[in-house]
Amino acid sequence: MNNVNAINALKELLGEKVTTSKSDRDIHGRSEAYFAHFPPDAVIYPESSKDLIIIINTCSKYNCPVIPWGTGTSLEGHSLAIHGGVTINFSKMSSILSVNIEDMDVVVQPGITRKKLNEELRHTGLFFPVDPGADASLGGMAATRASGTTAVRYGTMADNVLALKIVLADGQEIKTGSRARKSSAGYDLTHLFVGSEGTLGLISELTLKLVGQPEIISAAICSFLDIRSAVDTVITTIQMGIPMARIELVDAATARSFNSYSGMNMPELPHLLVEFHGSKIETTEQSKRFGEIVAEMGGSDFKWSTKSEDRNKLWQIRHDAYYSILNSRPGSTALTTDVCVPISCLAQALEETIDEINESSISGPIVGHVGDGNFHAILLVEPGNELELEQAKSLSNSMTQRALKLGGTVTGEHGIGIGKIAYMEQEHGYAWTKMHQIKKGFDPQNILNPGKMFQSN
Amino acid sequence: MNNVNAINALKELLGEKVTTSKSDRDIHGRSEAYFAHFPPDAVIYPESSKDLIIIINTCSKYNCPVIPWGTGTSLEGHSLAIHGGVTINFSKMSSILSVNIEDMDVVVQPGITRKKLNEELRHTGLFFPVDPGADASLGGMAATRASGTTAVRYGTMADNVLALKIVLADGQEIKTGSRARKSSAGYDLTHLFVGSEGTLGLISELTLKLVGQPEIISAAICSFLDIRSAVDTVITTIQMGIPMARIELVDAATARSFNSYSGMNMPELPHLLVEFHGSKIETTEQSKRFGEIVAEMGGSDFKWSTKSEDRNKLWQIRHDAYYSILNSRPGSTALTTDVCVPISCLAQALEETIDEINESSISGPIVGHVGDGNFHAILLVEPGNELELEQAKSLSNSMTQRALKLGGTVTGEHGIGIGKIAYMEQEHGYAWTKMHQIKKGFDPQNILNPGKMFQSN
Repeated sequence: MNNVNAINALKELLGEKVTTSKSDRDIHGRSEAYFAHFPPDAVIYPESSKDLIIIINTCSKYNCPVIPWGTGTSLEGHSLAIHGGVTINFSKMSSILSVNIEDMDVVVQPGITRKKLNEELRHTGLFFPVDPGADASLGGMAATRASGTTAVRYGTMADNVLALKIVLADGQEIKTGSRARKSSAGYDLTHLFVGSEGTLGLISELTLKLVGQPEIISAAICSFLDIRSAVDTVITTIQMGIPMARIELVDAATARSFNSYSGMNMPELPHLLVEFHGSKIETTEQSKRFGEIVAEMGGSDFKWSTKSEDRNKLWQIRHDAYYSILNSRPGSTALTTDVCVPISCLAQALEETIDEINESSISGPIVGHVGDGNFHAILLVEPGNELELEQAKSLSNSMTQRALKLGGTVTGEHGIGIGKIAYMEQEHGYAWTKMHQIKKGFDPQNILNPGKMFQSN
Repeated sequence: MNNVNAINALKELLGEKVTTSKSDRDIHGRSEAYFAHFPPDAVIYPESSKDLIIIINTCSKYNCPVIPWGTGTSLEGHSLAIHGGVTINFSKMSSILSVNIEDMDVVVQPGITRKKLNEELRHTGLFFPVDPGADASLGGMAATRASGTTAVRYGTMADNVLALKIVLADGQEIKTGSRARKSSAGYDLTHLFVGSEGTLGLISELTLKLVGQPEIISAAICSFLDIRSAVDTVITTIQMGIPMARIELVDAATARSFNSYSGMNMPELPHLLVEFHGSKIETTEQSKRFGEIVAEMGGSDFKWSTKSEDRNKLWQIRHDAYYSILNSRPGSTALTTDVCVPISCLAQALEETIDEINESSISGPIVGHVGDGNFHAILLVEPGNELELEQAKSLSNSMTQRALKLGGTVTGEHGIGIGKIAYMEQEHGYAWTKMHQIKKGFDPQNILNPGKMFQSN
């Protein structure tokens, strides 16, 4: 009844911004991963911080869960309404509020997507570099501390959010920083909210760092006889201070899926996809030095291309990896793993993982942001096949245990949501209790995305 | 009596690691700034986390303040024992615990200083890049979120601490992260503790990112007819994506103090000191492009030098700026300001500040980490001259008000301590209340560096 009362009150206050239509609720109850559907009781389309404050105050009064929703591309069930309540769709809060070219920053509302933002920035000579693949909203990317293919050069959302505005559970709106590039004024609330998955407050505005569009972008792909040579190539390149903008690993199984889905003709071997950004002289030198390392490690010959159509094709193939892999078993759904380990342990983690997958009956091609030590196995399961799901979960569990044993983390960029809660205590020990204490301080009623990152009770 | 009881109990438990000698207490009651002396009731030299836990548990039992102390180079009174209690001197916890060359990280105890760390790392080809000038301890640098001359390229302590171990007020030791380069596993406690000034827990171990020692370091100095041309040079250089490793501004008054203290023969004009790191080809190209920008902005001709003796001399002069400036008025002490503004407002902030200082009777040369929008006026006052101190405080207040008006922060890198508490509410509003709530959650008895960042009650 609490949720019904909250929604009735919200309809009074916000009118048509609140909907309880079945189709809207259904769409917002799905995720891109293997989880069950959990539709909310209502979906709200706020247009301002004022609306967010009304939502929070009303839901607080009635103890009704509030679930923020960007584009629904989370892979750990972050936006599922597991306890019902209202889902906030930020699509009508997607404006650019100011572009500050000299300061190389931009102030945006949380609903804008990264592709839209970069389209709007094109004429400025600047761009926002974090690229998780999906055309996610900036609010969602901040909330999950997303990263992706460019983190090796430009960092993750943790490195690229300068400040946030947050509507708190008590209905107050705060800002967590200024447009100054650095500050030592008190606790770093910006980083506390980046990665907080909607559990501490609602992001109502973001100030983001921008970087200059590179003069030249140079990209290439090459194959290796084994995973270890590919990883050693990356380690050596990083140690020599050669600044790769992207360095992606795909394993033999993924290369096979590219051949089938994207009409490629790649050898069924591990590959590195690499990109350099800079001036002509810089990218030429970097490409040359990288080529020498590849040759030393026994990698295949390859040609560099600075043509945008060649590059776009290369990265489209990589971005489509998830769909290529799903397509390799039509009708399947995926459990996507997301471990991240110190790079010195990466080859071992990858080899043991691939061996284990090959010994199982599950198909699980691997892609990796190898410069960060982060990789994903896309474990394919038939929807509704509980046995397969259990096998995939068992493989996933084995990978996370291995990552923790090697000094890594159970999630490099996808977050906790409902999918990784079971590992929080093991990864963090008593620090997880302290995280929970912070949560209770900011949200004593547990109305902000309840059941995510922490168990519900 | 609480503190006496705590110290007696600690002497029982830790023996000679605890001292109440007058000289030890005196040294730990001083700061490098204009504040009064506040000696602690005892100084403790722990040798392990176990010792830290004993200290915390005992001080918690008796409600005795605990003040962490690295090298005492804070400029905002962070380590003053304003309520008495015990000061923890970390000099016997200064080991390197592991160097991981492939992962480009190092695990250290908090007492090691940055120069010592880099000496130990020299043979590895790696170094720790954050350089606040003073040979501070890494624990202290993390606790104040320090930065300095290299932040424009390598970031601040917030960007270079990968993980911490922390002894909490309840006697538990946690780790805030792993050696993985990135993680989305829960709240970002690492960034919460970096910059927390000893108010949330005691740093017992740090995992730091390292970078490769550059093949070539190229440095130069040049003068400009006015501040605005110097700042415009920096803005253009950043926008063109030319990666400066250091870019420091000194004003005409500072140049004059260099001439007198270091025997330089600089024109009494604003100067930029710049450094590039990279391969021979990269630094040559970067220097050339930077030189073109300087010429466009009407800057003086200058020669690049890649010789280490020339570079060392240049940066020694810059690092000695504080002492050169103090020397320009023998016997004086300093109130050092530390504002940081969006770089588009930097020229205005500098010009208005210099005009205001020139109109006053206070001498206040300026140095700035101009790539970050951060600058310091070193306001010279005669010790004990209350009128001058009031004038300096009034100038400092005017600078901080201007920084806030321009969308900046009252402290770019020196922190809050006791010197900037008065501005916290103005800068953060209700967010400061939430910071205080976090503090109370972690330290309900307020024994951890009480009276810093927040008023004591």
